[in-house]
Amino acid sequence: MDLSVDADRLRADLEANAAFGRVEYDDSGKRGRTNRTGSEANAAARDRLVERMRDAGLEVAIDGVGNVLGTWTPDSADPAAAPVVSGSHLDSVPEGGIFDGPLGTYAALEAVRATREAGVEPTRPVGVVSFTEEEGATFGNGLLGSSVATGETDAEAALASESDDGETLGEALDRIGYRGDDAVNPATWAAFYELHIEQDTVLEAAGADAGMVTTITGITHCDVTIEGEANHAGATAMGDRTDALAAASEFVLDVEGAANAVVEESSASAVGTVGSLSVSPNATNVVPGRVDAEVDIRDVEGESMETIVSEARESLARLERDRGVETSFERPFDVAPTPMSDRLREGAHAAAADAGRTALDLHSGAAHDAMRVARVTDASLLFAPSRGGISHSPREWTDWADCAAATEVLAGALARVAVDES
Amino acid sequence: MDLSVDADRLRADLEANAAFGRVEYDDSGKRGRTNRTGSEANAAARDRLVERMRDAGLEVAIDGVGNVLGTWTPDSADPAAAPVVSGSHLDSVPEGGIFDGPLGTYAALEAVRATREAGVEPTRPVGVVSFTEEEGATFGNGLLGSSVATGETDAEAALASESDDGETLGEALDRIGYRGDDAVNPATWAAFYELHIEQDTVLEAAGADAGMVTTITGITHCDVTIEGEANHAGATAMGDRTDALAAASEFVLDVEGAANAVVEESSASAVGTVGSLSVSPNATNVVPGRVDAEVDIRDVEGESMETIVSEARESLARLERDRGVETSFERPFDVAPTPMSDRLREGAHAAAADAGRTALDLHSGAAHDAMRVARVTDASLLFAPSRGGISHSPREWTDWADCAAATEVLAGALARVAVDES
Repeated sequence: MDLSVDADRLRADLEANAAFGRVEYDDSGKRGRTNRTGSEANAAARDRLVERMRDAGLEVAIDGVGNVLGTWTPDSADPAAAPVVSGSHLDSVPEGGIFDGPLGTYAALEAVRATREAGVEPTRPVGVVSFTEEEGATFGNGLLGSSVATGETDAEAALASESDDGETLGEALDRIGYRGDDAVNPATWAAFYELHIEQDTVLEAAGADAGMVTTITGITHCDVTIEGEANHAGATAMGDRTDALAAASEFVLDVEGAANAVVEESSASAVGTVGSLSVSPNATNVVPGRVDAEVDIRDVEGESMETIVSEARESLARLERDRGVETSFERPFDVAPTPMSDRLREGAHAAAADAGRTALDLHSGAAHDAMRVARVTDASLLFAPSRGGISHSPREWTDWADCAAATEVLAGALARVAVDES
Repeated sequence: MDLSVDADRLRADLEANAAFGRVEYDDSGKRGRTNRTGSEANAAARDRLVERMRDAGLEVAIDGVGNVLGTWTPDSADPAAAPVVSGSHLDSVPEGGIFDGPLGTYAALEAVRATREAGVEPTRPVGVVSFTEEEGATFGNGLLGSSVATGETDAEAALASESDDGETLGEALDRIGYRGDDAVNPATWAAFYELHIEQDTVLEAAGADAGMVTTITGITHCDVTIEGEANHAGATAMGDRTDALAAASEFVLDVEGAANAVVEESSASAVGTVGSLSVSPNATNVVPGRVDAEVDIRDVEGESMETIVSEARESLARLERDRGVETSFERPFDVAPTPMSDRLREGAHAAAADAGRTALDLHSGAAHDAMRVARVTDASLLFAPSRGGISHSPREWTDWADCAAATEVLAGALARVAVDES
C-alpha cells in the first residue's frame, strides 16, 4: 500500500489544538498547554476534533464519560464487522506539552484521511478515538476514560470524581456538553493502535523513526499524609517541634534513594517520584503542621515496584518513631505491567519496512490508554521520537517530520488490519 | 492603685472577636480563626473594636494603612501631653489562634476601662492601638502597620503590597472602609506597652502570671527558588532527572540541621524553619520542575542568625554542584535583635508586685509590633502564659484567668506611666 500522509495537514491540526490552553514558554517557537478535562480549553479542543472528524466523513459518538469516537465506514466495509480503532487523548497535565495525547489523536485522523485518499478499500470500519482524562490531572487517577470504556472502572464512580474546585466530572461534562449517551466499547474492536511520543530518548539515541512497545510498565500511586504540629516558627524552640515538612523531606529522599537502589541492583527501568507535595498551613512563620504527598512508582518488573513501595512504608514507620509524626499511606491506583499484542507489533514493523522507516522494540515507562484497552482486545502502542525525552513540560518537542514519519507507520499498520486480507 | 480588671468583660470581648473567621477545631471548646487583613472577618473584627472603643469613651482615629487608635482623654489629663499607649493586632495567620493579637488589643481596652472605674486620674491621655497586618500572612512581610506608623516603611509602598488574589492593601482597606486620614504616630507617644501570649512554655513551666521581655529576637526571612527540570515521572529514568523537590528536601533538612547545630553549640534560642514550600507543576506523575520556599531564621544573637543564613546559602551552592539545579536566594526581611525599655520593664515588675502577681524576665522569639515602636519611643512587651507554647494553630490556648491576671499587670504598668507622678 502506498499511504501518503499529508505532513502539513497533520501539523496544522496539531498547531490548532496547541492553541487551546496555550502556555508561553520562550521565543524558540516552543510552547506548552494546560488542557484540563472540563476546562474551556478542553471544550474547545473537543469541539475542534469533532468538527475535523465530521469534515473527514466520520460519524461521531460520545459516551457517558465524554470519550469521543469517530467512525469511518466506507462502502467497501461490512458495517457490522469489528472496527479497527486508533487514537489517544486531548487532556494535558498543567503546563504540559503539545504532543502528548494530541499527536496520537490527530495522527489517527490523518491515517484515516490518508487511507481514503490512497484508494485503500477497508473491509471493516476504521475508528478514531479520544479518551477522557488520560492524565488524571483534574479528576484523580489517570486513564479514566479508557478505564470506564473497558469496564475496569464504574462509570458512576468516575462521574462522581471531584476536581480540586469541588466540581464532579459529571457536572463538568454536562457543562461543556460532552456527557453523551452513545457506546464506546473497546471490547467490540478488532484491534487498537495508539501512537504516542516516547517521552524518553531511546529512539532519539538510535536515530529511529518509530518504536514498537513490547510492555507498558506497571504503575502504583501512593497517597501519603504526614502530620506534625503547626506552631509559631519563632517562639517554638528547635527541640520542641514536630515539623511535618522536615519529616516529609526525609520521605522524599527515601523514595528517591529506594528507586536508585533498585536501578543499581536489579532493574534499570524502575522509577520512584514524589511528584506532588502540599504543605499546611504553608506560611513563612509557621512550623509546618501537615504535608500531603503523592508518590508515583513504576517498572516493567512488578517485584521492583513492590520493593520501592515497601521502602516508602518503612520510611514512614521510621519517621513516626524518630520524629513523632503521624502518617498515613494509601495506594489508590495500582496496575501491573501490561504486555502489548505481538501480532499488532509485528504488523507495525511490517508497515515501517513498507514505508522505508526504521523502527525498534522498547518498553513504555508511561501509562497509556492502550494499557486499559489491552485488557479487552489486541492493543499496540507505537512511539514517535521525543527531543531529549522531555515531556509533561512546555519544552516537550517532536519534530514535525518525525510526527509525519510515525503517522505513516501508524497508517500502514492500521490499513493492514482494516483491509483484513485474511 | 487598686485596679480591678473585669475578667468576664475581657473574656466576652475575646470570644466575640474569636467568632470572626472562626475555624472549628474540636469539641473541647478550643477553636481557631482565619482573620486575614482586608477579609470580611477582618472588617467585622475592626468594626467591633471601634464600637467597643467608643462605648468606653475613646475617640477613634484611623490612619492611612488602617491602624486604629482609640484615645481616652480624661478631665484630669493634659490633652497636649504625650499619651501612653497599649495594644497589639487583630489579624491572624491562616488557621491561627484566638489570643495571638486580640488579647493585647482587648486587654489594653480593658485596662483603660479598669483604670477609669478605679477612679485613677491620669495626667496624660491613654491610648489603645490595633496595628494592621502584623502577621504578614496576606500582604507580605509582618509588622506592616507598625512599620509604617514608625516611619520604617513607606506608606505608599505598603499600600501597593498585593495579596495572592492580586488586590493591593490600599484597595482592600478602601473596600472595608479602613483607609483613614488620621495620624497614628508612635514617635509622639510617651511610652508603649504590648501584652501578648508567650507562644512558648517558659511561663507555664515556672507557673508565673506574667513575663517581662528583655529582648525581641532578630528575624530574617529568605526567599529561595530551586529550579530543576519538569519531566514525565514514568518515562524519565532515575539517572536522567533534575528533580527540584528532591533538591529542596535536602535544603529543608540542611536548614533544620544548621539551626540545631547553633542551638547545641552557642545559642539555645536560635531557630530556623522552612515554613512555606510550593512545588510546580505539583502533579503525581511529573518530576517536580521548580520549588519556591520561604525560610524564617531568628535569634537574640545576630551572629547566630548569620551562621544559619550562611549554611542555607552553602546548601544551595552544594545542590547546584551535586544535583545540577539552579537556585536563587533573597533576603527580603531582616531585623536585628531589639532590646526593650528597662524603665518600662521595671515598672511592669512593680505593677505585678502591687497586684500580687508573679513575674519573670525572658526573651521573645517572635516579632511583635513593640519591636517597631521601640525604634521611636520607650516600648515594653509583656507575656501571658500559653498552654504548651502552641500558637499559630487552633490549639493555641491561654486560660481566661491567666488572661485576666496578665491584663491586671498591664493595667498597673500603664497607670504608672499615665499618672506620671514625677
